Amino acid sequence: MKLLLEISFYGKPFYGYQVQAKGPSVQAELNRAAEKLFGYPCDIVGCSRTDSGVHARRYYVTVSEKGKPGLCTDLDPSRIPLALSFHLPESIAVRKAEWVGEDFHPRYGVLEKTYRYYMRFSPVRDPFTAETCWQVPYGSLPDRLERMRKAAGYFVGTHDFASFMAAGSKIKDPVRTVTRSEVRQEDEQTVFEVSADGFLYHMVRIFAGTLVEVAAGRKEPEDMIRVLEARDRHAAGPTAPAHGLFLWDVRYPEF
Amino acid sequence: MKLLLEISFYGKPFYGYQVQAKGPSVQAELNRAAEKLFGYPCDIVGCSRTDSGVHARRYYVTVSEKGKPGLCTDLDPSRIPLALSFHLPESIAVRKAEWVGEDFHPRYGVLEKTYRYYMRFSPVRDPFTAETCWQVPYGSLPDRLERMRKAAGYFVGTHDFASFMAAGSKIKDPVRTVTRSEVRQEDEQTVFEVSADGFLYHMVRIFAGTLVEVAAGRKEPEDMIRVLEARDRHAAGPTAPAHGLFLWDVRYPEF
Repeated sequence: MKLLLEISFYGKPFYGYQVQAKGPSVQAELNRAAEKLFGYPCDIVGCSRTDSGVHARRYYVTVSEKGKPGLCTDLDPSRIPLALSFHLPESIAVRKAEWVGEDFHPRYGVLEKTYRYYMRFSPVRDPFTAETCWQVPYGSLPDRLERMRKAAGYFVGTHDFASFMAAGSKIKDPVRTVTRSEVRQEDEQTVFEVSADGFLYHMVRIFAGTLVEVAAGRKEPEDMIRVLEARDRHAAGPTAPAHGLFLWDVRYPEF
Repeated sequence: MKLLLEISFYGKPFYGYQVQAKGPSVQAELNRAAEKLFGYPCDIVGCSRTDSGVHARRYYVTVSEKGKPGLCTDLDPSRIPLALSFHLPESIAVRKAEWVGEDFHPRYGVLEKTYRYYMRFSPVRDPFTAETCWQVPYGSLPDRLERMRKAAGYFVGTHDFASFMAAGSKIKDPVRTVTRSEVRQEDEQTVFEVSADGFLYHMVRIFAGTLVEVAAGRKEPEDMIRVLEARDRHAAGPTAPAHGLFLWDVRYPEF
């Protein structure tokens, strides 16, 4: 059996999820903590790559002994979240642990992922969301929410999303199915929530950057049809900064 | 005319609002920033004392030239929030500025203040709320919310709140009128929201600490009657930590 962990992490201190030579990563911290807890080196496999600075409200990893299909421990899974969290920095929390079969893969097994991108349209900064929300320094923009909602609606469905993929990305098949794409206001924050069977590199951040173009009146909601059809990164808006992005939820067939 | 500022501050870096010899304070930062912007020393008067580490979603201060009843500037008030914020640390934001009469006092003029105290009942930590919410490391507690709600209800009304005042406090008249006292669940956080015409030293934090005693079954909701009648700090629960407390709103007769 492998161990499946549900974790959360605050992205600011990390060069993303994956181990990087240039600095701290969530995976490197998990490797270190797991080796301390279990007493041997482990393989940690994550559910998704994440960019430097991106946050995860929910993220899943499997843990197995290095080079082996599973893991041996006398610890009850209910005790593992606190025990592992003890060896991790404050920016990472282990929420749950459970046993899964050795053929379970946290990335290939994903049914649907949901991201949220947080924006705040205000010239005035907010000390409580400075690290978790993109402050867009415009004053009031007419029909902003309605325009963003309408534009976001065009992302729903099975499309070739090449226009919303980082230039230079080597993905051969940029067709994805977006099952939800919504914009709503939560107090002073504007939240863009999007679910899909998979995402291209920078896809949500380019969605968000393009929605801000629509909010500002530099693009019309209907332009999204043309942007999708162009299959060209230049047709979409800029890439929104990493710190507004949260991997919000990950759905698997069962557990 | 004096300048009235609506500000927000994240409390962690400060020894509270008021100028302290031992370290940074919100007032000292405002003094420094106002002198830079206006070119002369200023008197900054705040709407409330706050403990070290307490946050403010809304806080009000007046600014006048040092030793004078008002302030002279050519700046339009609409430009002052950004101009002042520029000279302040990221943890303080100026949201609005407007002119008020020289007899306006931001503390004596308060009609009602509202505080929120954020708690999270979970043995597992959360990286996103670690600095703005008290993590109470209990698992599930039966009828927790209902018990807390019922207990909080006893605080409403005009009472002698001596039991909920820090020991050693020199306030002569501990009678206050609580107009609202509610507990609700917001996602994983339990929020205690309380409004009153005024608050005693540590009052909200002792309310919160006592509500946790009720949640944990160490006190009954009905015990609040006896605790109020005792007029003795020892009758109430412990003082909850500062970092879960927000000054949420301040109401004045008009503006």
